[in-house]
Amino acid sequence: MRLGLGLIGSGFMGRTHAFGFTAVNHVFDLPVKVDRVMLADVDGDRARHAAAALGFLGHTGNWRELMTMGDVHIVDITAPNVLHKEMALAAIAAGKHVYCEKPLAPSASEALEMTLAAEAAGVVTALGFNYLKNPMLKLAKEIIESGEIGEVRSFNGIHAEDYMADAQAPWTWRLDPAGGGGALADLGSHVVATARYLVGPIAQVLGDVRTVITERPEASGSKTRRKVEVEDIGRAFVRFENGATGCIQANWIETGRKMQHDFAISGSRGGLAFSQERFNELDLYLTSDAQGRSGFRKIFAGPAHEPYGAFCVAPGHQIGFNDLKTIEVYDFLRAVAGEKVGHAGFREGLEVQRTIEAIYRSAKAGTWRNVE
Amino acid sequence: MRLGLGLIGSGFMGRTHAFGFTAVNHVFDLPVKVDRVMLADVDGDRARHAAAALGFLGHTGNWRELMTMGDVHIVDITAPNVLHKEMALAAIAAGKHVYCEKPLAPSASEALEMTLAAEAAGVVTALGFNYLKNPMLKLAKEIIESGEIGEVRSFNGIHAEDYMADAQAPWTWRLDPAGGGGALADLGSHVVATARYLVGPIAQVLGDVRTVITERPEASGSKTRRKVEVEDIGRAFVRFENGATGCIQANWIETGRKMQHDFAISGSRGGLAFSQERFNELDLYLTSDAQGRSGFRKIFAGPAHEPYGAFCVAPGHQIGFNDLKTIEVYDFLRAVAGEKVGHAGFREGLEVQRTIEAIYRSAKAGTWRNVE
Amino acid sequence: MRLGLGLIGSGFMGRTHAFGFTAVNHVFDLPVKVDRVMLADVDGDRARHAAAALGFLGHTGNWRELMTMGDVHIVDITAPNVLHKEMALAAIAAGKHVYCEKPLAPSASEALEMTLAAEAAGVVTALGFNYLKNPMLKLAKEIIESGEIGEVRSFNGIHAEDYMADAQAPWTWRLDPAGGGGALADLGSHVVATARYLVGPIAQVLGDVRTVITERPEASGSKTRRKVEVEDIGRAFVRFENGATGCIQANWIETGRKMQHDFAISGSRGGLAFSQERFNELDLYLTSDAQGRSGFRKIFAGPAHEPYGAFCVAPGHQIGFNDLKTIEVYDFLRAVAGEKVGHAGFREGLEVQRTIEAIYRSAKAGTWRNVE
Amino acid sequence: MRLGLGLIGSGFMGRTHAFGFTAVNHVFDLPVKVDRVMLADVDGDRARHAAAALGFLGHTGNWRELMTMGDVHIVDITAPNVLHKEMALAAIAAGKHVYCEKPLAPSASEALEMTLAAEAAGVVTALGFNYLKNPMLKLAKEIIESGEIGEVRSFNGIHAEDYMADAQAPWTWRLDPAGGGGALADLGSHVVATARYLVGPIAQVLGDVRTVITERPEASGSKTRRKVEVEDIGRAFVRFENGATGCIQANWIETGRKMQHDFAISGSRGGLAFSQERFNELDLYLTSDAQGRSGFRKIFAGPAHEPYGAFCVAPGHQIGFNDLKTIEVYDFLRAVAGEKVGHAGFREGLEVQRTIEAIYRSAKAGTWRNVE
Repeated sequence: MRLGLGLIGSGFMGRTHAFGFTAVNHVFDLPVKVDRVMLADVDGDRARHAAAALGFLGHTGNWRELMTMGDVHIVDITAPNVLHKEMALAAIAAGKHVYCEKPLAPSASEALEMTLAAEAAGVVTALGFNYLKNPMLKLAKEIIESGEIGEVRSFNGIHAEDYMADAQAPWTWRLDPAGGGGALADLGSHVVATARYLVGPIAQVLGDVRTVITERPEASGSKTRRKVEVEDIGRAFVRFENGATGCIQANWIETGRKMQHDFAISGSRGGLAFSQERFNELDLYLTSDAQGRSGFRKIFAGPAHEPYGAFCVAPGHQIGFNDLKTIEVYDFLRAVAGEKVGHAGFREGLEVQRTIEAIYRSAKAGTWRNVE
Repeated sequence: MRLGLGLIGSGFMGRTHAFGFTAVNHVFDLPVKVDRVMLADVDGDRARHAAAALGFLGHTGNWRELMTMGDVHIVDITAPNVLHKEMALAAIAAGKHVYCEKPLAPSASEALEMTLAAEAAGVVTALGFNYLKNPMLKLAKEIIESGEIGEVRSFNGIHAEDYMADAQAPWTWRLDPAGGGGALADLGSHVVATARYLVGPIAQVLGDVRTVITERPEASGSKTRRKVEVEDIGRAFVRFENGATGCIQANWIETGRKMQHDFAISGSRGGLAFSQERFNELDLYLTSDAQGRSGFRKIFAGPAHEPYGAFCVAPGHQIGFNDLKTIEVYDFLRAVAGEKVGHAGFREGLEVQRTIEAIYRSAKAGTWRNVE
Repeated sequence: MRLGLGLIGSGFMGRTHAFGFTAVNHVFDLPVKVDRVMLADVDGDRARHAAAALGFLGHTGNWRELMTMGDVHIVDITAPNVLHKEMALAAIAAGKHVYCEKPLAPSASEALEMTLAAEAAGVVTALGFNYLKNPMLKLAKEIIESGEIGEVRSFNGIHAEDYMADAQAPWTWRLDPAGGGGALADLGSHVVATARYLVGPIAQVLGDVRTVITERPEASGSKTRRKVEVEDIGRAFVRFENGATGCIQANWIETGRKMQHDFAISGSRGGLAFSQERFNELDLYLTSDAQGRSGFRKIFAGPAHEPYGAFCVAPGHQIGFNDLKTIEVYDFLRAVAGEKVGHAGFREGLEVQRTIEAIYRSAKAGTWRNVE
Repeated sequence: MRLGLGLIGSGFMGRTHAFGFTAVNHVFDLPVKVDRVMLADVDGDRARHAAAALGFLGHTGNWRELMTMGDVHIVDITAPNVLHKEMALAAIAAGKHVYCEKPLAPSASEALEMTLAAEAAGVVTALGFNYLKNPMLKLAKEIIESGEIGEVRSFNGIHAEDYMADAQAPWTWRLDPAGGGGALADLGSHVVATARYLVGPIAQVLGDVRTVITERPEASGSKTRRKVEVEDIGRAFVRFENGATGCIQANWIETGRKMQHDFAISGSRGGLAFSQERFNELDLYLTSDAQGRSGFRKIFAGPAHEPYGAFCVAPGHQIGFNDLKTIEVYDFLRAVAGEKVGHAGFREGLEVQRTIEAIYRSAKAGTWRNVE
C-alpha cells in the first residue's frame, strides 16, 4: 500500500516528523510505503526550502491545498496549537488520516469536537505523545499487565525541564494563555499520558498551579515587561479509576533539568522506576527475589524489548529521541493499515486534555474535581 | 563539665542513643563529658541487661526514679510516642535537659504544652530528626543561605520505604491511631523537617492521605483481621512563607525502597538534588558554569563539610547512620554547654507537628489549610 | 554535488550504513546529496530484496560490477573482514572513495597496503569507529585539547560485552583466527581508537590475552566441539608517545555487560569519565571548583555539543546508536566534499591495527613491545 | 572474658582503632570485653592527651612498656610502617595478641619473619584491611562461594584516589622508598586483598609502575625540590591459582577520585560490580533472570547481610567507614576468643606483600613473575 503524506509546518517538529516518515520504511518492514507528497508552511518560501531539504515532491504556502489533493492520504499537523482544530477538521472532512502534535487542542471541548469528527469519519488519528513509544515503557506496561509487580498502588511522576528558568528569557508563544496553559499543559500532559498508559484512567484530581516568574521582557533585551498568566509549575494528586493514587508534577523552571520525565510505580509485589534522562533503561524490583538478593534490577533496552530490535540487533546500543518519533509513525501507519495497535489517537488526546482541565479547575477551586 | 545521662528505653532507638552518647566524646572534642548514669525500661530485667551491655552505672524499671536523681542532668526519651509528654514534663519539672525521639507528641497541642514547659524552665531540648545532622544537609543549607543557587523556587521531597508494603504483615503499634497518624506522621515528618531546615516555615498545605491496606492480620499468621485506620501514603502540596512552593510525599508501602529520603530544590541560579540512599553525596547545579560544561556536580562528603572531619580525615570514606545520631548528640551537648547551635529542639518538633496536623486537616477537608 | 553510493553487504551493518546515508541528508545541511545507486550482496536474491527495502536503484550479486559503474562514486564495504582488502583495492583502483567497516583488515600489513593504495590514488576513506562520532567524545577531545584538565596523565579504558559469555553458544565466524583475533581485535580496537583519539598515539604496549572458553559446539546443539583459538579477554598496559600511560581491556564474556565502552582520563587539573552505557553524558571534574563544591559534573548532550543540535534543538533528548552512524557518514561526506574534518580514515585504521598487533606480539612474548 | 588493650600510636589510625575498640562492645554482643589499659606514643605529651580523650587508663612515651604489662593482652600497632616489625616481634615475644595496621611490613621477608614468629607463639593476629569488613564484600564472597554466578572468570579492580595529584603538594613520608613502595603498596595492597578474598590466591603477575610527578617541593612552599622514587600509578595483570585472570590498578593521582575501590567480577552464570564510593551497595547479575528482565540488581545493605544488623535493624540506613573498623575489631576479638572467623591476620598480610613484591619485580623485569 502506498500512501501520500501532506505535512503542515516546517519547524523543529515538522522536520522531526518528516524524518520519522523517511526512517520508518528503512527501519521497519511495513506494508505501507509513504510518499512525501506535499509540504505546507504559512511562509511559502520556507515551505519551498523545506520541501527540497526533506524530500517532498511539492510545497505550498496554503495548507488548505492539501485537503483537495487526491494523492494525499495522511495529513500531519505540526503547526501551532491554536490551529490544530481548524486543520484537523478540514483534513477529517476530506477523509484524510490525521497525525497531530500534542496537545490536541487548547481545550477539551475543542478536542472533543475533533475526536467525534474523526470517529464519525472513520479516519485513523495519532497524537505525538512520543515518550510512550519507548520500548521500555512498553516493557513497563507488559510487566504491569502481566501482574509481575502485583496490584499497582501508587504512581509518582514528574516532567521537569529548565528552558523557562531564566527570568530574563523573553515572553514567547508558550506563555500565551490561548494555548491552553503553561507547564502543566505543555509538560504535565506527557506525565498524564504516561500515567494513563501504565496505570489507567484518572478519575479525580487535586491541583495546584504556580506562576513564579510573573513578568518577562517583551522581547530579548527589551525593557518593556509583559505579564505572565500561565503557570511555571503545575502539580496534582490523582486518584485512578482502579483505586491507585498518585502525584503528577510539571515544571519548566527546574534549574539544571534538561529532560526529566521520571516515574516510580509501586505495586503489591514489586516496583518500577524510570527516568527519561536514561530512557534506554528500566528499573524493576520484585519481592520474589531471594532473601538478601533483592534490589532494583537495571534492564537495558535490547532486542527482547520490541521494537528495539528493528533499530539494532544487539542490546545496549541505545535508541535516541528521533527513533521514538519513528516508532510513533510506525504505530500510526500500522493502524492506518488496519492493525490493532493501541496507540494514542485523538480520543486519548481528548482524555489527557480532560484530565489537564480538571487539574486547572481543581487548582482554581482549591479542592478535588472529577475528570470531566 | 561532666553531665549525667538518664536513658529511658532500651529498644533499637535506646541502643542507638546510648551509642551516640558513648561515641560523641571519642569523635568530638567537647567541653562536656557524659556519664551514663541510669537506664530505665518498663521491663526491669531488660533494663538490667541493657545497662550492663551499654555501660550504664545503674538501672531501673521505673523511669520516674531518674527525675529525682541529682546526678542525672539529661533525660533521654526513646519510649513509645504516647509516653513522651508525661516523661518530658516530669523531666522538665525536675530541671533536666531533655532529648526526645521524634515525633515530639501525637498532637500539636501536647507538643505545645511540652515546648512551653521547657522554655519556661529554661532547659535545653533536642529532637531526633537525625537526617538533618548530615554534613551534606548542612552544606545544602550553606549553599542556599549564601545565595549560590539564587532564590529558592521549589522543593520536591519524598520519604519512602517499604516496611509496611506486605499486606500480610501483621498489625503493629505503628498503626495505632493514638500515635498521631501513619506514614505521614512517621516518615513525612522527616520531609517536613528537611523542608523547613532548608527552605523555611510552611504557611499553607493541601493534603491527601490514603490507606491502601485496609486491614491486616491481628498477629503474624492470625486469621483475625484488624482494621487499619492510619494512612499508608500521605502527600501535600505546600506554600512556604517565603513564597516558594513544593510537594511532600510519605509512603511506607513503596515496594523496593529501603531508605528514600530524597529532595530536589530548584533556585533561580542553580539547583540541589539529594538522596538518603547515598547520603554522603550532594548534587549541585550552577547556572554560572561555562556554556557546554554545565551539569549537576556530585560532591562527596569530606573534611570540607563539617563535621565530617571529626569522623575521618580523608574525603569520600563516608559516615553511616549511627554517625548521624552521634552528630545529633554533639549538637545537643553543645547547646547544653551554652553554645548557639541552631539544632532542632522541642519548638521545632512543635512546628513540624503543626505542619503535619495541618496536612491531616487539609486532607480531611479536601482543600487548603493554613499551618496552625 | 550529487554522489552515487554503491553498498556491499546487506546484513546488520549494511542496513545501518544504508540508513545513515539516507538520514544524513535529512539531518544535516550538506553540499553533497547521495543517490543510492547500487547494492551488492554475494546472494543475488538478498541483494534484490535489500535494494528494494533500502531504496537502492539497482542490485547485483557481483560486487565487482560497482567498480565499473560511472555513477558510483562511493563504495561502502560491510562485507566480512577477510574480503575488505580485495574490495577496497578494487574500489581504489577504480577511483572510488571508500567507506569500510572496522577492522580495516585482519593484519597490519594488509591495512598498510590498502592505506598506501588509497593515499596514492587520492581517494577519501573512512572507517567505522562509530563510538568516536559521539558529540560527547568530541567534547572530551575539546576539553583535553583546550587544557581544561591540564596535562593528561592516565587513560583507563574497557570495552566489555557478554555476547560470547555462554559456553554453550556455538562456534561462529568471530572465532576464526583468520579474522585477525578475538575480543581484542573486535572490541579492543574500539578502545585503542578512543585512546588514540583523545590522548594520542601509543608507543609501547604490554599485552595479555586469554582464551577462557577453549572449545565450543560446532553448531547450536551440536555435540561435536570445536577448538577456540582466539582470545575472550585481551588487555594491555600502554605508554602513549606524550608520556601518559594507561590500561586497555577488551572482554566479550563479561557476563551482564551489554555495551560497556568506558574510560576515565586523569589530568593534572581535572578528569573525565565516560560510559557508552549512557553515551549522552560526560562527567567532568575540575580542580578549579571552589573548596567544598568540587565533584564530577554530569554534562548531558545538547545543542552546545556539535553536532547534537542537528538531531534535536533541545538538550537532554538524546541521540541513539544509529545517529552515531549518521554522523560518521556526515564526516565522511564532508571529507569527500573537501572539508578538513579529521575523521578516521584508512590510515587511522592502520594505526589501530598496528597497535592491536603489537599487543598480540607483546602477549606472546610476555614483555613490552613497541608499536610497529 | 576481659582483655586489656595496649595501643601504640595516637594519630588518625590510632584514634580510629581506639574508637573501634570502644564501639565493638556496644554494637556487638561479644564474650570478650576490652579494657583500654595503656596508650603509647613516641611523644609522651601526646600520649597523655590521647589517653584522656580516648578513655585509656594509662599512657607512656615508651611503647616497650606495654610488653611487660600483665594486664595488656592485646597490642595494637598504628605506628609508622617501618616500626611494625620491631613492635610486633616484641609483642609476640611477650605473648600478646597483635593487631597491626597495613601494610604488615615494607618487605615480604620482614612480613614472613613476623608471621612465623606469631604462628610459633600461637598468638592471634589481625591486619587492617578494613574494606574487606564490609557486609557487602562478605555477601559477594557468599555469592561466589555458593556458585550463584558460576565459575569466576575475571576480576577487574582499581583503587584510585587523588591525594597526591597536586604536583605542588610537598614530599611526605608516603614517598619514602623505605616504606616499601608508592601507590601500589599503599592502595594496590587493598585491591590485592580484595582479589584474594573474593577470587583466591594470585599465582602470577605482569606489572607496570609509573612515577608521574618526578619531584616535589621539599616542604610546603619550599623552592627546593626532592626527587620522588616511588610510583604514582601501579598496575598488574594477574593470573589466579584457580585459572581466573584479572587486572589490578592503583593510582594516587587520579584527579577527582576520593575513594574509588571498585571491582567487577565476571562468572559463567553471573557477575558482580562494586564501588567503595557507595559501599552499602552491591550489584548482582544472574543469567537465570527471565528473558527481557535481566539486569544488574542493586542490593542495599540490610540486616540480611551480616553483621549490618548489629548497627541498624532497618535496611538501607548505611554503615560508615568507622563501622568497618569496628567490624574489623569484632572479627579480631572473636578470633582471640577462639572462634573460627577467617579474618585477615599476619599470614594474609604476608601473602598480599608477596604479591605486591612480585608486581614490583615484574615491573622491573618487564615480564611475568610468579608470586614468591
